[in-house]
Amino acid sequence: MSASEPADLQAQLLAMPPVAAMAVRVHALDAERVTLFAPLAANINDKGCAFGGSIAGLLTLAGWSLLVLRLARAGVTADVFVADSRIEYLAPLYADLYAEAWLAAAVDWDGALARLHERGRASVSLESILHGGDGVAAARMHSRFAIRRTAP
Amino acid sequence: MSASEPADLQAQLLAMPPVAAMAVRVHALDAERVTLFAPLAANINDKGCAFGGSIAGLLTLAGWSLLVLRLARAGVTADVFVADSRIEYLAPLYADLYAEAWLAAAVDWDGALARLHERGRASVSLESILHGGDGVAAARMHSRFAIRRTAP
Repeated sequence: MSASEPADLQAQLLAMPPVAAMAVRVHALDAERVTLFAPLAANINDKGCAFGGSIAGLLTLAGWSLLVLRLARAGVTADVFVADSRIEYLAPLYADLYAEAWLAAAVDWDGALARLHERGRASVSLESILHGGDGVAAARMHSRFAIRRTAP
Repeated sequence: MSASEPADLQAQLLAMPPVAAMAVRVHALDAERVTLFAPLAANINDKGCAFGGSIAGLLTLAGWSLLVLRLARAGVTADVFVADSRIEYLAPLYADLYAEAWLAAAVDWDGALARLHERGRASVSLESILHGGDGVAAARMHSRFAIRRTAP
């Protein structure tokens, strides 16, 4: 990982107005996982807990971020779109939001990169959880993202 | 429907900071459907189209709004939580966002009200679509909401 990766990702995220409004921050990055943070105050609902839309948004952004990073590391210029998602909301969260995303176990990353080179597009499945900083899932998402190679 | 319903719902929505940031407006209400609006400018992503998190958020809010309205009309005081959702993102949307929600065909609304009175809780399934004002779905969601009766 390059030293500027967290700052670059943070800048990409905050360039999107709805993401800036959620006050999203890059919390942690490593080769396998991205964890994003968003404060409860900017993402609170009528019941004083985390808004379902913010939960869905942060889970989606964590997945998007993981793929954007992995593609940048692989030297691939591409757009990343969420294609479908399934979210289970397990418990109300009365704390700041953390979303962690990783590749689903079945993903063949090298195969996806090969498809991107050959056909210009690929599809990758991710898992992600949302928690309050303790790693205990308040929500979990299974998602599929579409990747489309673009001109560098 | 009472004349103040759209304004009351709008005030409830905008009391949530992340919903105010999305600049959500009540577009239309009738006995069967709620349609919410959000401008693209406040909900745009890095590719110049609608942010996936805003799409998920607006779809979720439209469902939540429909149940909040129907419960108010039935004289039931309750909290409404999204329990799970499945979203398909069908096409990028380069326009303002409209989300329409309605009860899934299988829902027995009177039965749900009876369960709320007897047990204090019920679960209801909704369908919703997101479009750019022309009714052509750019995303669709199937969701289940949990309703919990509270003290009036």
